[in-house]
Amino acid sequence: MTTSLTLPSACDFHLHVRQGEMMQMVTPKIVEGGVSVAYIMPNTVPPIKNTEQALEYKSQLEALAPQVTFYMTLYLSPELTVEEIRKAAAAGVAGVKSYPRGVTTNSDSGIESYEIYYPIFQAMEEVGMVLNLHGEIPSDPTNDICVMNAEERFLPQLEKIHKAFPKLKIVLEHATTKAAVDTVKRCGDTVGCSITVHHLQLIVDDWAGQPHHFCKPVAKYPHDRDALRDVVSSGHPRFFLGTDSAPHPCHTKETSKANAGVFTTPMVLPYLAKIFEEFGALDKLENFACHFGRQFYGLGPREGFVDQGVTLVKEDNVIVPEKYPVSATNESAGVVVPFLTGKNVGWKITKNFF
Amino acid sequence: MTTSLTLPSACDFHLHVRQGEMMQMVTPKIVEGGVSVAYIMPNTVPPIKNTEQALEYKSQLEALAPQVTFYMTLYLSPELTVEEIRKAAAAGVAGVKSYPRGVTTNSDSGIESYEIYYPIFQAMEEVGMVLNLHGEIPSDPTNDICVMNAEERFLPQLEKIHKAFPKLKIVLEHATTKAAVDTVKRCGDTVGCSITVHHLQLIVDDWAGQPHHFCKPVAKYPHDRDALRDVVSSGHPRFFLGTDSAPHPCHTKETSKANAGVFTTPMVLPYLAKIFEEFGALDKLENFACHFGRQFYGLGPREGFVDQGVTLVKEDNVIVPEKYPVSATNESAGVVVPFLTGKNVGWKITKNFF
Repeated sequence: MTTSLTLPSACDFHLHVRQGEMMQMVTPKIVEGGVSVAYIMPNTVPPIKNTEQALEYKSQLEALAPQVTFYMTLYLSPELTVEEIRKAAAAGVAGVKSYPRGVTTNSDSGIESYEIYYPIFQAMEEVGMVLNLHGEIPSDPTNDICVMNAEERFLPQLEKIHKAFPKLKIVLEHATTKAAVDTVKRCGDTVGCSITVHHLQLIVDDWAGQPHHFCKPVAKYPHDRDALRDVVSSGHPRFFLGTDSAPHPCHTKETSKANAGVFTTPMVLPYLAKIFEEFGALDKLENFACHFGRQFYGLGPREGFVDQGVTLVKEDNVIVPEKYPVSATNESAGVVVPFLTGKNVGWKITKNFF
Repeated sequence: MTTSLTLPSACDFHLHVRQGEMMQMVTPKIVEGGVSVAYIMPNTVPPIKNTEQALEYKSQLEALAPQVTFYMTLYLSPELTVEEIRKAAAAGVAGVKSYPRGVTTNSDSGIESYEIYYPIFQAMEEVGMVLNLHGEIPSDPTNDICVMNAEERFLPQLEKIHKAFPKLKIVLEHATTKAAVDTVKRCGDTVGCSITVHHLQLIVDDWAGQPHHFCKPVAKYPHDRDALRDVVSSGHPRFFLGTDSAPHPCHTKETSKANAGVFTTPMVLPYLAKIFEEFGALDKLENFACHFGRQFYGLGPREGFVDQGVTLVKEDNVIVPEKYPVSATNESAGVVVPFLTGKNVGWKITKNFF
């Protein structure tokens, strides 16, 4: 039995750290999870739509977590121009994130059309920026589209964009279905796929009436979770960690209409060790969490960064904190309840990378 | 456009009224919804397992709502005997309810086996008692069984029992899937199916993060909801109202692990008028809510009961109350949030049946 693991620091290729008090609480916790690379989502308020905003946000985050290398993204919207893409790439912005709602502006009968963005994609392909896709189409009961099949129904769009831009790097974010895994595998080497911590653990039953497990895309059938576990266990190099960790105050979760998101940031590697151990793939954890994402993105280490490695040790009673106060001084900001709150994860970081 | 409806009082063939303070609050509200016949579930604490308990419970309910005719059920468990069935039938107990957990005691690899109950079913068939099935098998990820397919996976059990006891009246309770509708249609005239108010309205998206819409079985795909609406619109006589209205205090819904259940009792007919109108089947409402269930069960009116009919009128701003206090005197008992809380249902009972 493996009782200790030493690996490089992890790379989280899909992360929400918010703004204001929440950002101040969450950002320093990135390193606590054994993570040194954070690929930051642009869905702030307002969204990050240009290079200046991205760089300003990045400098805020760097001030809060100097040990972390941050990669920034822009929010795909009709305002984005080819010129802005070139400018962003030159400034080191790594990707452009597409959300369902951002593309429904020009949708036809509920089917999304990305074609208005083809000039943008062309420019991204040229400058080597990555397209990050939230792969769901909006629910539409008249076409039998709901949260359970929204991802599967999106997949033809992924294949279409990939066919039109075979050299454009595309990441299908937070895959939750066997259909998504199969589609990404079928695509060429420029298509990757991020997988969250929680989707390796949860099925639909777990979020039925349980708001802290409710996220988008929702966790699906057991056979879907098995497909995620299987592709990770196979060591497929285009499937890598992107936690989609998304903190929400508890009072916006335990309510009549919960916000979507699961908070995993402070314990990313302990969670992964627990889950990978349970499905018998501890030996695949390092590539999944530390190497494959970086390889796909083609990212080297930050200049001057020395990774001292992370050591995880198997222990009894490694209890996940029940909650994290958003603010040390402002109680009304509430608390964030982490994934597997109050549960024993059985693995602890005894030496961190910095 | 229909702006007024007059119909007999409705029959609710699946109802939870609980015990204690909750029972005292809920039971008098049955008539407020335009309902005069209530078929009462036995999953109290402890469950109703014999004739004495059923009659005692019935007398409590009659004292709280003398205008309502109550039909009682027993909880199917290995303790139930053939003698008790005969005794219960002679005392007017109408049915026996089977819950998934009650049958897993003698399950084999997660597949339920009802065969240990065949002597009970035989006796029920002889005395004319109805078997009420909660048609779900327990979730079992190793066999890809989860809340989304638990009903469909149960259906072979329904067909098996029906084949073994073709004269036994069986009701598949609170159907939620096209598969269930198709199976019941395929069965003989002794197999009926109750449909709730909320399953005619909700899909999986509606309970994703929304605890007041979370119930078991969970609402499914849009095409499943369409199948329920279609069979009701077709006027099929073996599909009838059973609300499965299940009150829970709000603090047990808006929490980390919500209780399952939707509370519809106080406004059953207004809700139905709204929903049937929306899917264009107002002309089918009376048979669905007032006649088909009674016909299936073979129940005549209670002696001496004169149904004065219910009149519903279409109005603007018929707002569902936000909440119902469980107790007028004990604030700590909490409140129950009803279905479509705070929303306009557009229909109001202007004259009730009593």
